[in-house]
Amino acid sequence: MATIKDIAERLGVSVSTVSKGLNGAKDISESLRQQVLDTAVEMGYTTKRKGSTGHKIAFFIENMSCEEESDFGYDLLLGFRQGAYRTKCDVDVLHISPEFMQEYRYNNYMLENDYSAAFFAGVALNDPWMQQFEETTVPTVLLDNFIPKNPHLCYLGTDSEEGIEMAISHLVSLGHEKIAFLNGSKDSMISDQRMRAYLRSMSAHKLPIDPNFAIYGYFVAAAAKYHVPSFIDAGVTAVLCGNDDIAEGVIECVKELGFSVPDDISVIGFDDMPFSATLYPPLTTVRQNRVEIGKSAYHVLEGMMSGISPSKLLLRPSLTMRASTGIAKPRLAVRRNDSHDSVLHINPRLYEETLKQF
Amino acid sequence: MATIKDIAERLGVSVSTVSKGLNGAKDISESLRQQVLDTAVEMGYTTKRKGSTGHKIAFFIENMSCEEESDFGYDLLLGFRQGAYRTKCDVDVLHISPEFMQEYRYNNYMLENDYSAAFFAGVALNDPWMQQFEETTVPTVLLDNFIPKNPHLCYLGTDSEEGIEMAISHLVSLGHEKIAFLNGSKDSMISDQRMRAYLRSMSAHKLPIDPNFAIYGYFVAAAAKYHVPSFIDAGVTAVLCGNDDIAEGVIECVKELGFSVPDDISVIGFDDMPFSATLYPPLTTVRQNRVEIGKSAYHVLEGMMSGISPSKLLLRPSLTMRASTGIAKPRLAVRRNDSHDSVLHINPRLYEETLKQF
Repeated sequence: MATIKDIAERLGVSVSTVSKGLNGAKDISESLRQQVLDTAVEMGYTTKRKGSTGHKIAFFIENMSCEEESDFGYDLLLGFRQGAYRTKCDVDVLHISPEFMQEYRYNNYMLENDYSAAFFAGVALNDPWMQQFEETTVPTVLLDNFIPKNPHLCYLGTDSEEGIEMAISHLVSLGHEKIAFLNGSKDSMISDQRMRAYLRSMSAHKLPIDPNFAIYGYFVAAAAKYHVPSFIDAGVTAVLCGNDDIAEGVIECVKELGFSVPDDISVIGFDDMPFSATLYPPLTTVRQNRVEIGKSAYHVLEGMMSGISPSKLLLRPSLTMRASTGIAKPRLAVRRNDSHDSVLHINPRLYEETLKQF
Repeated sequence: MATIKDIAERLGVSVSTVSKGLNGAKDISESLRQQVLDTAVEMGYTTKRKGSTGHKIAFFIENMSCEEESDFGYDLLLGFRQGAYRTKCDVDVLHISPEFMQEYRYNNYMLENDYSAAFFAGVALNDPWMQQFEETTVPTVLLDNFIPKNPHLCYLGTDSEEGIEMAISHLVSLGHEKIAFLNGSKDSMISDQRMRAYLRSMSAHKLPIDPNFAIYGYFVAAAAKYHVPSFIDAGVTAVLCGNDDIAEGVIECVKELGFSVPDDISVIGFDDMPFSATLYPPLTTVRQNRVEIGKSAYHVLEGMMSGISPSKLLLRPSLTMRASTGIAKPRLAVRRNDSHDSVLHINPRLYEETLKQF
């Protein structure tokens, strides 16, 4: 466990400065105090702060992990804890499943376990608690899910529209026109948002939209092999992906087919997971700042516990530019005899609808 | 000026409790402390709090007032001050105009006057500073305006889509089908949002959409007289309005034409301004909680000053039900000879586009 000395060394300040920061003394600057607190949480300094408010907050996590730095949930939890530490709230991490949600009613579970509020990362649209969220009075923040009309629920996420537009703009500035989108799975609110954003952004840049280039798959690397060959056949020069896992699969697949990233095909991911910097080539990707999301989740819950009713909070993405994107080169489409039909095409109705907006 | 005794009397607690709340003593509950602080700000208790952080924040206001309780900006400023008071920030209120923005560059003005961050209420799309917001690095929150891609800018507002949907659902539950929307002026992001929300909500309820019932006007009562007569001629039984001022005008106009609110025409406003409760009949209206907006504006700026980059924060509206809405009664349309053509029709392109989404 980290000591005050460890924190002082990491920050390059004196032990007494760290001590002042942890104890809220007035004679260090506010920004230094924040840094001390953030670092203390990051290094796992766990001495109970004086004067705990007694609030217990649940950090529910499903379909993802938060134990290793490489996990999507790791930075979320870190940011959340950094937020909670300032106001002396206790945070419990609870890994849940649909079976768990079947067993307990949400309100009862929260009451029996004395939780004042909750954050959820990774819940799916068809999870048993999703319906119960419509009626709950427990302040609840959902990552990437929206519940209409309940003032006790807030949707928190990254601005997908802006993220996709940043990626497309970047590709357009490199001369790409035939840009495919290999999205995540259909049963997800953010997949839907990102598909609409892709169609909107392509139209805004006056680029052709081909339903064969706008594909729902799954949020895994293996999705790539069903689609990349036909993208290449059709002369696509860049593939935007629904997350970094998909992008990793696309890079592998392009290489296996004997082409080069980025010389033949540029690839962009979404998320900026730690592994994306270590891919070959390193991945250009739309960055979600997960520490900020975690911190914001806590701050939003704090506001909700004092009566504020946010409906949605979106954070700004940024574009992390690495070597997987490059200048588009004209390439003769190699037509092959075997047909690589896309397994999961875009929902034609969504496509039609969205197209019509332009 | 309010004293500690005044605050104690208002809250029904002892003077020493108020004093503890103001001084951050640990032996009163957090929620009571919050109440003491909020009430102190509300009553204008102005003793400087110890240990000011030295941050100065600008509260810019244009096209509206904040001096009287009846002003739109009054509760915004109250909430903002309540937020700032907790963290000992100083708030300056600055009434601005396009001429003022022409005279000073935004960044320079902020720097020269030592402001760390700013909130803007009431700026218009064509204001000189709007373009400068795209590049600024000063943490800035805009009420009801969105600037893409700049991580130092956040759009804050009420969820218009949900507000309009609440209003339409309420009217539908009362049996209304021919529902007109008399919106505010076209040069406003929220007018555009609300128009789209109206069209979407009408379609979701499978109600007919008639371009003659979906009208852009101005955010003033006088807009009503150009449109209400033709609404009545066409058999409209309910008018949803872009704000409470328009709704006041609609009620007056309906009465002048010899009809009754709500017996012949139901009327709904937007905002829930203080005067809306005193209209005859009192106005049913979509409530924007302006104190919450002000508080949230401050909290968002606080997060932005510590490096969080929100893109948009929307707060939940609620529906304040009063006597201006009632059960729809079938009414024979009285066709008159004089034609009351609408002065400002809906933008046909927006209308077509939005319709196509369904």
